[in-house]
Amino acid sequence: MRAAAYTQDQFQPVKLKKIPTLASSVGGFERLVQVIADVLPADEKIAAIGIGSPGPLDPHTGYLLAPPNNPEWHNFPLAPKLSEHFGAKAYLDNDANLAALGEYRYGAGKGHRDALYLTVSTGVGGGVISDGRLLQGYHGLAAELGHSIVDPNGPLCSCGFNGHLEAFSSGPAIARYVLQELDNGATSALRRDESLTARQIAEAAHQGDELALRAFRRAGEYLGIGVASFLHAFDPSILIFGGGVSQAGRILFDSFEESLKKRVFHPRYLEGLVITRAQLGDDAGLLGARALAEIKSGL
Amino acid sequence: MRAAAYTQDQFQPVKLKKIPTLASSVGGFERLVQVIADVLPADEKIAAIGIGSPGPLDPHTGYLLAPPNNPEWHNFPLAPKLSEHFGAKAYLDNDANLAALGEYRYGAGKGHRDALYLTVSTGVGGGVISDGRLLQGYHGLAAELGHSIVDPNGPLCSCGFNGHLEAFSSGPAIARYVLQELDNGATSALRRDESLTARQIAEAAHQGDELALRAFRRAGEYLGIGVASFLHAFDPSILIFGGGVSQAGRILFDSFEESLKKRVFHPRYLEGLVITRAQLGDDAGLLGARALAEIKSGL
Repeated sequence: MRAAAYTQDQFQPVKLKKIPTLASSVGGFERLVQVIADVLPADEKIAAIGIGSPGPLDPHTGYLLAPPNNPEWHNFPLAPKLSEHFGAKAYLDNDANLAALGEYRYGAGKGHRDALYLTVSTGVGGGVISDGRLLQGYHGLAAELGHSIVDPNGPLCSCGFNGHLEAFSSGPAIARYVLQELDNGATSALRRDESLTARQIAEAAHQGDELALRAFRRAGEYLGIGVASFLHAFDPSILIFGGGVSQAGRILFDSFEESLKKRVFHPRYLEGLVITRAQLGDDAGLLGARALAEIKSGL
Repeated sequence: MRAAAYTQDQFQPVKLKKIPTLASSVGGFERLVQVIADVLPADEKIAAIGIGSPGPLDPHTGYLLAPPNNPEWHNFPLAPKLSEHFGAKAYLDNDANLAALGEYRYGAGKGHRDALYLTVSTGVGGGVISDGRLLQGYHGLAAELGHSIVDPNGPLCSCGFNGHLEAFSSGPAIARYVLQELDNGATSALRRDESLTARQIAEAAHQGDELALRAFRRAGEYLGIGVASFLHAFDPSILIFGGGVSQAGRILFDSFEESLKKRVFHPRYLEGLVITRAQLGDDAGLLGARALAEIKSGL
């Protein structure tokens, strides 16, 4: 858990605090209240509170629905309870949407009105800013772009459905592909080990390992297929990539860009399109929460 | 070409006129000006003009880019020229977006804030309303949902790229599938004829023809795959179907709904989701143009 206090005119937090999340501990809400209280300046009134959390959640009601591995938070009125406790409006959205909002307002997306943020990591998450507004949807479940179907007969996703972008291009998907290929007799410096990570594969790829290179090329190719459809859907002026896997560099992005250009059905989508890396790192979520609170409360 | 004059408080047009489009005729702009002039009440000031056209076009500048089969309109400043001629602001967008806007404001989508409109016809077109606003995108090319990639190895789309939703579920795609299956020796009451239409196939399906039924089931199945990803992307509260193919009824929508339910990765997307047919028929585009003019000019 991290909490930060911001003033309206300052980009840097007045105070920032981080405590371990302890996913399964009881009393998580009390600990969250405490870490927020710890960053609050003594004699300032709170204008608004923004909160980011893993989904699924409902940003319209501020309820957490069923975050994984944590029964305490199931169907939990997080924003309403924080609002009541601190006597200020509180707004909730998921991590990827807030990272998108943070990058849009304060990071790589500054100056753009139509931004698409993708985090490629353990999962693939998305956030969309359209004409300056965060796309949330009726249930608050818009922009779940990792769960776009890029091949209906493709491998199983972590969510239990087949052929999602996440099942091709996330870190675990890249590792799973390498393990399968090793099982099929591919030669590689990589050894068959269930704990193999995308980071280890990236290192092997940078040393020229053919299987490792092929695994990233495949991830990049499907990322290009998915993003082509996202351009057709959202038509952004900037693509912002966050997450650990997107730090793999050219071994991922060469095949991504080739695939994207091959799949975009009208060249105009690419005119002026910026493809870039996220700038805010771990701060994107906090700054996104700050932005959400500002926007929703009309500050 | 159709033109209609509306007053601010009336849903029905004051005057409506329709003339043949004559796609390749010279003087199209003059004919358009004339048909607009013909519907204008003699002594009323024009508040704003809304125009719908096939794409590609740029709604931000009001330029037509490269409409098919009509070189006269290539890179043509349609909205600026109408604006200059009539001394009123003029706004342009494509047919599917305007149909979406029309249905949202005056038809099947009334009362919803997040609507997804799909026309399934010669092509597959889309329009998205998100939190009450038409999704246009940076180049004005958002919501080209017929060109979503639903299977990267799928058949060729009319646009020249592979595996788009339109290449599975449009009328011509349904006919192409039947012709292929006949070539492969499938038995059917339908005869191998290049001019076979989806309408004829629908009639055969309604009479129990197995191949015809299979063709619509396949179109519906892929429509479900595409729409599942659209729910994950836009999270609407209503799906509105227009276009001739969507009038096929249960032979299309049974398999569509089955496929959609099988593919949506979280049940919450379906909670309260309305799936319905467009209500405005041919008037959707005109009413959408009216809505566009109202919204953009701030009336």
